[in-house]
Amino acid sequence: MRRGSTNRELKHALLERLMHYYHFLCGQPGAPTPDTVTSTEIARLVHMDDTLVRKDLAAIGVRGHPRVGFRSVEVLSAIRGVLGFDTAFESVVIGAGRLGSALASYPGFASLGMGIVGLFDNAPQKVGLTCGRHVIQPMVSLPTVVRNHGVSLAILTVPPDATQEVADQAVAAGIKAIWNFASTSLTTPDDVFVRHEHISVGLAELSYQLSRMSEQ
Amino acid sequence: MRRGSTNRELKHALLERLMHYYHFLCGQPGAPTPDTVTSTEIARLVHMDDTLVRKDLAAIGVRGHPRVGFRSVEVLSAIRGVLGFDTAFESVVIGAGRLGSALASYPGFASLGMGIVGLFDNAPQKVGLTCGRHVIQPMVSLPTVVRNHGVSLAILTVPPDATQEVADQAVAAGIKAIWNFASTSLTTPDDVFVRHEHISVGLAELSYQLSRMSEQ
Repeated sequence: MRRGSTNRELKHALLERLMHYYHFLCGQPGAPTPDTVTSTEIARLVHMDDTLVRKDLAAIGVRGHPRVGFRSVEVLSAIRGVLGFDTAFESVVIGAGRLGSALASYPGFASLGMGIVGLFDNAPQKVGLTCGRHVIQPMVSLPTVVRNHGVSLAILTVPPDATQEVADQAVAAGIKAIWNFASTSLTTPDDVFVRHEHISVGLAELSYQLSRMSEQ
Repeated sequence: MRRGSTNRELKHALLERLMHYYHFLCGQPGAPTPDTVTSTEIARLVHMDDTLVRKDLAAIGVRGHPRVGFRSVEVLSAIRGVLGFDTAFESVVIGAGRLGSALASYPGFASLGMGIVGLFDNAPQKVGLTCGRHVIQPMVSLPTVVRNHGVSLAILTVPPDATQEVADQAVAAGIKAIWNFASTSLTTPDDVFVRHEHISVGLAELSYQLSRMSEQ
């Protein structure tokens, strides 16, 4: 997280595009993944330029085949490899509110290599309740769960004023990365990777587009 | 949504950075917003390069003052103006699952100009239930709600195989933008703006970083 901005953005934009290709190549309801696909077809699906699609695929070592284009299975496999989806890792969700419960129950994470082995909350009225396949545990159990399951990621969905304290506890318990859903900055050791997920970035783009429309 | 990729990414990256500045300038728990701030201070807070911070602020018309730097209130106001947060708009959430319920109850949207005036679901066992301040309504009521409240945005949190049909209904009801949380592409008229929110983009970045750590 202590990196130059240019590097970070390039990487993030590429990761984001690869994730779009991945989603659209995984097949849509009623439209299973084709065996082969051209960069033009991918570009049309994701509303991007096909030169950029070819450049991105070349960057991760995927080559097209004469007359058929790209083999979907090769593209998907290369993206999975680059993004680490085949390197399984375990996570915990801390904060069993609506968002935390939604994330802890989200079915799409497993196929991307992430397991969720615990849901934590310190509210006495929540501890012990069942949420999907999880029983909500108190924070005092966090170190044991992290150690026993080799947990590397903590997903934080706690209120802003609790985020730093909970992050400290997660770091002390041994986690290597934090996915922070509160709109607060965090101070963490340099070897802990932090990704801030601001739902409001999406809202900002929509708000911007809607305000432009209303001006027209 | 039918735009060139380069343009789209630049815009998105700038929006995203502005949103980061905005969050960190809005003050953190225990650290209220300072009256003035330098680009170096902003840069340190958001872990970016201060040249880029100055460039971004200049791009939205914010000027620094000799010896004091930027006035926080001017930066915040400029960002609110550019991103349209002062242009209030109404939205509905369609799909009253965990994520839809979390979004419909999220307290941070109002200050960014977005109201949520309805939560919809077609499951008979959900219609009529109370979720936070919303009573879940059937889809048949959507056109009336959109018309009566001047709703411009539909937030879709329905299963992938229902997303296109629901999007069609929202467009027919008159909405101008869609925030799609299902990982499916959508076909919509050119004058409807669509933002796809892939939670898995965040996961991809974390997965990538964790797999790199495990190689070291």
